[in-house]
Amino acid sequence: MSETVSAPNLVLDDEEIFTAHHGGKLSVELKAPLDTQRALSIAYTPGVAQVSRAIAADNTLAARYTWAHRLVAVVSDGSAVLGLGDIGPSASLPVMEGKAALFKTFGGLDSIPIVLATKDPDEIIETLVRLRPTFGAVNLEDISAPRCFEIEQRLQEQVDIPVFHDDQHGTAVVVLAATLNALRITGKRPQDMKLVVTGAGAAGWACTRALKDLGFGNIVVCDRQGALHRGRDVGDNPAKQWFVEKTNPDQERGGVKDAIRGADMFMGLSSPGQLNREDVKKMAADSIVFAMANPTPEIMPEEAEGLVRVMATGRSDFPNQINNVLAFPGIFRGALDARARCINDEMKGAAAQAIAEVVTEEELSPDYIVPSVFNRTVATEVAHAVSRAARSTGVARRIPKGVDIYR
Amino acid sequence: MSETVSAPNLVLDDEEIFTAHHGGKLSVELKAPLDTQRALSIAYTPGVAQVSRAIAADNTLAARYTWAHRLVAVVSDGSAVLGLGDIGPSASLPVMEGKAALFKTFGGLDSIPIVLATKDPDEIIETLVRLRPTFGAVNLEDISAPRCFEIEQRLQEQVDIPVFHDDQHGTAVVVLAATLNALRITGKRPQDMKLVVTGAGAAGWACTRALKDLGFGNIVVCDRQGALHRGRDVGDNPAKQWFVEKTNPDQERGGVKDAIRGADMFMGLSSPGQLNREDVKKMAADSIVFAMANPTPEIMPEEAEGLVRVMATGRSDFPNQINNVLAFPGIFRGALDARARCINDEMKGAAAQAIAEVVTEEELSPDYIVPSVFNRTVATEVAHAVSRAARSTGVARRIPKGVDIYR
Repeated sequence: MSETVSAPNLVLDDEEIFTAHHGGKLSVELKAPLDTQRALSIAYTPGVAQVSRAIAADNTLAARYTWAHRLVAVVSDGSAVLGLGDIGPSASLPVMEGKAALFKTFGGLDSIPIVLATKDPDEIIETLVRLRPTFGAVNLEDISAPRCFEIEQRLQEQVDIPVFHDDQHGTAVVVLAATLNALRITGKRPQDMKLVVTGAGAAGWACTRALKDLGFGNIVVCDRQGALHRGRDVGDNPAKQWFVEKTNPDQERGGVKDAIRGADMFMGLSSPGQLNREDVKKMAADSIVFAMANPTPEIMPEEAEGLVRVMATGRSDFPNQINNVLAFPGIFRGALDARARCINDEMKGAAAQAIAEVVTEEELSPDYIVPSVFNRTVATEVAHAVSRAARSTGVARRIPKGVDIYR
Repeated sequence: MSETVSAPNLVLDDEEIFTAHHGGKLSVELKAPLDTQRALSIAYTPGVAQVSRAIAADNTLAARYTWAHRLVAVVSDGSAVLGLGDIGPSASLPVMEGKAALFKTFGGLDSIPIVLATKDPDEIIETLVRLRPTFGAVNLEDISAPRCFEIEQRLQEQVDIPVFHDDQHGTAVVVLAATLNALRITGKRPQDMKLVVTGAGAAGWACTRALKDLGFGNIVVCDRQGALHRGRDVGDNPAKQWFVEKTNPDQERGGVKDAIRGADMFMGLSSPGQLNREDVKKMAADSIVFAMANPTPEIMPEEAEGLVRVMATGRSDFPNQINNVLAFPGIFRGALDARARCINDEMKGAAAQAIAEVVTEEELSPDYIVPSVFNRTVATEVAHAVSRAARSTGVARRIPKGVDIYR
């Protein structure tokens, strides 16, 4: 508790942080005051009965006369929170409140944190299916791998609203956007590049798949035991099975410090201290380092200074913040705007492209490959791109004429 | 959908009601804006990790640094909504949003509607136990009898936060308060009075028990089949079993129109059209009629005019509104202020007494037996009384020094 979180341009002491969290960060407010008997009679009895009766007769009207259709559930079991691991649901709640604050600030979306006192995938899915009429989309957050894969997939099969594990796909969308722009700077082509990844969890899997789809051929993914190759027994973890089968064409063995030799790009989604300055020196020229462990990156930017062409982290206190906040508010907003049944790969790809394109040719530089999280254009552009992709791929629903669900 | 809800002093047409519900009635807001990188770094990464770490080390700190301790879950399965019956979870959501709006307006409490796509008591209890770290208290709402009794009791046994079925206890608290003041007006004594009740559901049970505890000796409770007496087979419904055993000392049979003859007080918690003017004429002198069916009372006030001494309904558009809003905001506020583990009978009794006492001797009149729902003193007085009762009955928890959870 005496720790101080510091960074070159930002020093936060505990007192400031804890004071800002006192009583939590959210409140539920009324869209119109209940200050007259007339207002009360409309919002509650007897008036509200008319609205309930109408929805009972036609359930689709719930999307017009309740907040559910524009409400995101931010759901966690607290099993993989930031870089802190399995700290439980109560300890994850400040993060989920923060996430809800981001949804509102950047996406204009209401959301409620839902933290669960169970880690059993069946129970988590069952619980969310039972809660289904409460909200319009599910943002799964900080749920450990490999359970997160199964939970997301099976839940999406059982509900007709978007389910999105942000640690996977939100990260992958922003990493893809940042990679597109880093490639513009370095002039490298994915098929010629060696990519080393640390972290074979949820984010590692989603990001690696996104970059493989982009064309990266030589990818070496390392978990705590080192490089994943065909000789490794990875049990029934579907992500690790995929890594074993689809990556590491040269069947490299050893750790990240071996794999990094000659690599063009490093993508860290693991834990602090993976690389030091000597390791970075072994990388190819014009190297790209995305060190995204939270809150402390795999290597601090100052340690790699002068050795890499593009350096990015997940932190708000360094340049090139690869932060999901660039993606999820616009993605959910776009999906809810289109009343999409899910968030498919086309919608995710459209989101990445939209983020990358917010950075103009003139603005693009090694210290500016992704827009600032405070750039309000991002969520708007992402939302439009995602809505378009939802409609063109047939997962959008018709929106009744004259309905502005955000009114 | 073409219906118009009207009352002597209030006409609401559908257009006004539906317009006010467009997009729902609630929003989730930030207590402080995320408008700088510093604010973002405190509320989200890296700052929030310090708070999560602290709660992981000491779970009781969640009550200080999250909103859970002051957050009420407004939970329904949509099985007994207002007077509309089993209309399902989506159709119940406007009511739950309205309830949340009332919690904020009158109790200063944040709350979130939780509507469930299951009516199975085991599943409802299980779901709420899994959601336990998400909130600080559970308001069960519009869940049909007899399931509501079992759900409330078993859930309270499994969680250490207040569980309160408002249709039962909120109603009973306000009915008790109104009865205390109606007795002051009529000068009648409960032990000399005949009370006829329609509605043997959740509210009927809780209100009848409260009035029996106050001393009413001759109580006749009618359900749709008529007066409950020892000859009736009521299956395994615990409320109806209680009525059969503990009420109707004269073993009256027949319907409410028979029982009403000579009655001093009528308490309706059922449906419109139970009584007409001729029925009310058969009551004893200085009769008391509480016709609380929503949205249309058992008998409209204009029909009973001139025949009864005290007339009350559940509606906001007539005098003497016996509405739970007088009780639940202060009861939950008081329970959460005291960090109570439950809401016990002493706390409910204290709440009723506090509501009754807000009406001074000078103010008391047949048209003013309960305070206006807009009287802000009520919730404050109720909260204080409930907190005091929680502490004196040993269900309160110690609040760490210097903590103002509503900051």
